[in-house]
Amino acid sequence: MAPASAQAYVEDDSFERDTDYIPDRITRDGRDGWQVRPDTYRLVAAKACPWATRSIIVRQLLGLQDVISLGLAAPVHDERSWTFDLDLGAKDPVLGIHFLKDAYERRFPAYDKGVTVPAMVDVASGQVVTNDFPQITHDLFFEWQDFHRDDAPDLWPDDVRDEMEEVMQRVYDDVNNGVYRCGFAGSQSSYEEAYDRLFAALDWLEERLAGRRYLMGATITEADVRLFTTLARFDAVYHGHFKCNRNKLTEMPALWGYARDLFQTPGFGDNTNFAQIKQHYYRVHEDINPTGIVPKGPDPAGWRTPHGREALSSS
Amino acid sequence: MAPASAQAYVEDDSFERDTDYIPDRITRDGRDGWQVRPDTYRLVAAKACPWATRSIIVRQLLGLQDVISLGLAAPVHDERSWTFDLDLGAKDPVLGIHFLKDAYERRFPAYDKGVTVPAMVDVASGQVVTNDFPQITHDLFFEWQDFHRDDAPDLWPDDVRDEMEEVMQRVYDDVNNGVYRCGFAGSQSSYEEAYDRLFAALDWLEERLAGRRYLMGATITEADVRLFTTLARFDAVYHGHFKCNRNKLTEMPALWGYARDLFQTPGFGDNTNFAQIKQHYYRVHEDINPTGIVPKGPDPAGWRTPHGREALSSS
Repeated sequence: MAPASAQAYVEDDSFERDTDYIPDRITRDGRDGWQVRPDTYRLVAAKACPWATRSIIVRQLLGLQDVISLGLAAPVHDERSWTFDLDLGAKDPVLGIHFLKDAYERRFPAYDKGVTVPAMVDVASGQVVTNDFPQITHDLFFEWQDFHRDDAPDLWPDDVRDEMEEVMQRVYDDVNNGVYRCGFAGSQSSYEEAYDRLFAALDWLEERLAGRRYLMGATITEADVRLFTTLARFDAVYHGHFKCNRNKLTEMPALWGYARDLFQTPGFGDNTNFAQIKQHYYRVHEDINPTGIVPKGPDPAGWRTPHGREALSSS
Repeated sequence: MAPASAQAYVEDDSFERDTDYIPDRITRDGRDGWQVRPDTYRLVAAKACPWATRSIIVRQLLGLQDVISLGLAAPVHDERSWTFDLDLGAKDPVLGIHFLKDAYERRFPAYDKGVTVPAMVDVASGQVVTNDFPQITHDLFFEWQDFHRDDAPDLWPDDVRDEMEEVMQRVYDDVNNGVYRCGFAGSQSSYEEAYDRLFAALDWLEERLAGRRYLMGATITEADVRLFTTLARFDAVYHGHFKCNRNKLTEMPALWGYARDLFQTPGFGDNTNFAQIKQHYYRVHEDINPTGIVPKGPDPAGWRTPHGREALSSS
């Protein structure tokens, strides 16, 4: 997600995520000054980052690739900023910058908060419009509908919206952010509290997904995108690096089948880069992996094995 | 095994174990000045340490508990020495010392090598006789036979001795010490080389154990004791802490069945203390786990499940 500035330890040694994002929105009516328009904005993301990968997946599910361009930051960065080290000349070919922080500083010259991905950047001015990641995927769905592909999925189905918000809230607190609360705990007790909450939530999801193909039923929603990017990193990173090691994802049959089902759906697995994911966590977090050595395992071959969950769609 | 002094990095960043042990032996003929005699020596070990736990297991398999007493060092120590923090008053009740290094210094006043466990200590003088761990278990079998229990297993069967030495050598190089070579590698390439050797050896063992109940056939030998103490630590420590993460032990059916079979044999599981094992590695190795936080997982319940390997004994 972000360099160190987006993380903070609070008094009781629990990890608390800094969520002070730039709140502007790109909308159909342009009320914040940023109007929905093709070939106008660039989504800057990183395949290493679970929060950013959500926006990459949603953009693809909705067929917005020809409308909103995509810049990809490199997996490893220092405390200053994500960079475009993967690009020719180490600069984003559209924005012409090396450090993503330059786009933040074009917007706010003395910007001192987290230089995070995903970020929506206005190409003409080179300014970051917003880095508010849940708002970005929300608005890709609700504000950009005129540009969705014809058979785009309904990622926010009206009839289950209330329950979906509840599911997403628990998934965020205990799973998406829960793994970070395990890994960045400042004490044994805050780690154990986060671990217990994480696995209680995974047990709840395991049960929920035993009878449903996706979190909200027979079709993919935003809730699935949000859970997937954490599950994709679970065995490769969180299990060892963040000490989320009651069991591997592969040891929870429904969750593992669900994760593979999504992985094998266009937009999910093709945007999952295990090499970049591992490089990012194991090399950026020098405080928990000072050697910088990146584990060679686990073997990702299992992600492509049959999951047998198609039958659940008809229920 | 030992505080930092027993570890060294060599030029190419590979971990090399310091094996400069005190070479004296306790023998039937007492040729080194130390004769086999009951109630004379104290085995100092630690349930945290795989090398030391070998000697605890062998002592029990051979029924030497009433002949050689056992002192147990605490799982966490600093760079100076293992200590008797688990004992009343933090002193060994027989030797009367807090730091194990005191027994080394009684023997050699300026002792500057690794203060390691296991160590055989002469109770009367309070001096360490030897800390040469493979020699210790070898001699418990060959030199103490007059005191073995009647139905003690033949841990060194003559008819397979040559092959057993070969098996133990590869297990030592690639597995017992191989996990340390992964964890203490000084570079990405030396880590990956150790990882490849480790898993090649585990694949070889998996195949070997698919058709044999124990490493050398139908009965337990010293080779099994040596492999067991590494396998018992695999998922709890080496998988995450030492980045031996191609797969968990539980993902290799023959090895996992074999490990459970031994665990459920008196002498093995009853001397396996997962809490002490995890405390030791995660708190002593501050260079690879600076937070000192000890993982709560994995769930050890699986160790007591049926293994179904009895049938292999008849082959």
